[in-house]
Amino acid sequence: IIESVGEGVTDVAPGDHVLPVFTGECKECAHCKSAESNMCDLLRINTDRGVMIADGKSRFSINGKPIYHFVGTSTFSEYTVMHVGCVAKINPQAPLDKVCVLSCGISTGLGASINVAKPPKGSTVAVFGLGAVGLAAAEGARIAGASRIIGVDLNPSRFEEARKFGCTEFVNPKDHNKPVQEVLAEMTNGGVDRSVECTGNINAMIQAFECVHDGWGVAVLVGVPHKDAEFKTHPMNFLNERTLKGTFFGNYKPRTDLPNVVELYMKKELEVEKFITHSVPFAEINKAFDLMA
Amino acid sequence: IIESVGEGVTDVAPGDHVLPVFTGECKECAHCKSAESNMCDLLRINTDRGVMIADGKSRFSINGKPIYHFVGTSTFSEYTVMHVGCVAKINPQAPLDKVCVLSCGISTGLGASINVAKPPKGSTVAVFGLGAVGLAAAEGARIAGASRIIGVDLNPSRFEEARKFGCTEFVNPKDHNKPVQEVLAEMTNGGVDRSVECTGNINAMIQAFECVHDGWGVAVLVGVPHKDAEFKTHPMNFLNERTLKGTFFGNYKPRTDLPNVVELYMKKELEVEKFITHSVPFAEINKAFDLMA
Repeated sequence: IIESVGEGVTDVAPGDHVLPVFTGECKECAHCKSAESNMCDLLRINTDRGVMIADGKSRFSINGKPIYHFVGTSTFSEYTVMHVGCVAKINPQAPLDKVCVLSCGISTGLGASINVAKPPKGSTVAVFGLGAVGLAAAEGARIAGASRIIGVDLNPSRFEEARKFGCTEFVNPKDHNKPVQEVLAEMTNGGVDRSVECTGNINAMIQAFECVHDGWGVAVLVGVPHKDAEFKTHPMNFLNERTLKGTFFGNYKPRTDLPNVVELYMKKELEVEKFITHSVPFAEINKAFDLMA
Repeated sequence: IIESVGEGVTDVAPGDHVLPVFTGECKECAHCKSAESNMCDLLRINTDRGVMIADGKSRFSINGKPIYHFVGTSTFSEYTVMHVGCVAKINPQAPLDKVCVLSCGISTGLGASINVAKPPKGSTVAVFGLGAVGLAAAEGARIAGASRIIGVDLNPSRFEEARKFGCTEFVNPKDHNKPVQEVLAEMTNGGVDRSVECTGNINAMIQAFECVHDGWGVAVLVGVPHKDAEFKTHPMNFLNERTLKGTFFGNYKPRTDLPNVVELYMKKELEVEKFITHSVPFAEINKAFDLMA
C-alpha cells in the first residue's frame, strides 16, 4: 500500500494498492513501446544497482551507514522506497497476502505458457522442472486449454502435487535409458506441441528444445542458466520448423499487465492459493527461506 | 503442363498448368492439417527415394535398365512422372518460363521473410548470403514493408545487384575487425528486428541469431548446414527474448500456397524477372549449370 509519493509522481497516490516488481516499465523506451518486449531499458532487472536511479543514493541506513537496495524493490522490510516504474497498481479488493506471489515466479511461469508458448486448445505441453515456476507454467498451460501436460522432473515426490496444477502425466528422466527427448517423442507421436523449461539446467534446455514436434513445435526457456552454459544443438532441428525462444518475467509488462493477472485470480481462473503452503510472520522471514529449501 | 493423369487422380487434368515441387502435400497427414507446417509426412523431400511411392518402381529407363527419379520431380527432362501431391495447379495465364523459378529457391527465400520472419512495416532486416535464396529473402522483406534491409555477404560484387531486391545497405564481415553481430548492433541501435540466414554456414547462423535485438528480435534459418555442424550460443541470448526458428521451403504448402505466389507475380508485387539472368535451351542444360557457378 502506497504510504507517500515523491515529487512528480502522478500514477499512484497514497492508499493505492500496488505490487512491487523487480523489473520495471518506464513506458517511454523502445522496449516499453514494443508490444513484444517487457525489458525496459531504464528499469530492467539490475542486481548491481543498490541505489535509486534519480540521485544514485540509498534510502536505507543503519547507524549512519547506507544499506543498499535489493533488486530495485527491497521488499524484505515493512516500508521501502521504489521507483514508480516498478510498482503496479492493482485492484484494491485483491487480498495482498495472496496476490503478492504474482510479483515474481508465478507470473514468470504463467506468462511463459500463456504469453509465449501459447499452447493451442487441446495441445500437448511438456514442463521441465516442477518448482514454483514450473508449476505456474503448468497452470498457464491448463488455463490456455492444453489437454496433455507432461511434467518432467528428477524428483518424483513433486509429481502428486503437480496434478493440482494441471499436470496429467509425468516423466522422470532417471527412469529411462534413452534421452528424455526420445521418451517424450514416443509418448506424443513425434514430439510435444509446446515445451517450457523451468530449471536453468543447460541439458534440460537442450532437451526441452529437442522434444518439440517438427513442423510446429515451440520451446520456451525460462530458467536462468549458469554463466558459462552453452546451448548446443544440430541446426537441422531448427530447419525442421521448430521454434526456440526465451522469456523474462513471462513477457508481462509489470505496470500494464500485472493488474490483469490479479484480475485473472479475482475471476478464479488462476488459482493462487495452491501455490501457498505456509504463511509466517515477518519476524520469522528466515524460517520462510528454510521452508522453501 | 499435364499430359495425362494416373488412375484416381482428380485434382489435376490434362492441359492444366502446374509447377512441380520437390516437396509435396498429401493434405491428409498431421503436418498437412497443421496450419503451421508444410513438412508432409508422406511427401516431404526425400533425396534417397528414386522411385514412385505407389509401386516402388521407376518410370524411366534406358536400354531396359531403370533410371531413378530425382527428388520426386525429375524435371531435367521434357516429360516426367510425378506424385499428384507434388504438383501445384496454377493460373494458366502465368508464363511458365518465368514462374518455374518459384518451385524452389525463390519461394524458399521469399517465404522465409513473408511467412516466418514476418518483418513489421518499417522494420530493419538483415539478410545473410546474397545468392538467389538470399535475394528472394530481401525481396520478401521489401514486399512485407521493411524499411532497412541490410545485405551481409563476403562477396562485395553481389551488393550492386542486391539493390534491385530491396537491399538498402551492405556489410562485408571482412571489412571489420569485430564480429559482424556487433557491427549490425551498432548500425541498428541494439540489433536488427529480423534476420534471415541463407548461406548454410554455421557461423553465419550463429551471427544471424545473435544480431537480432533483445526483447523482440526474430532470426530465421534457411540455409542447409553441414551434417556435422553444431549451433552454439549462450542461453542468455534466448532469455533476453530473442526467437530462433528455421524454415523449409519458406513454410509454403506447395499445392495450397504456390498458386498464390504465382498470383503475387501476376499482380506485379513480386518481380520474378529480375531473378532470371539467362535463358538457355534444354539441350544446353549443362551450360546453365556452368552459368550458375
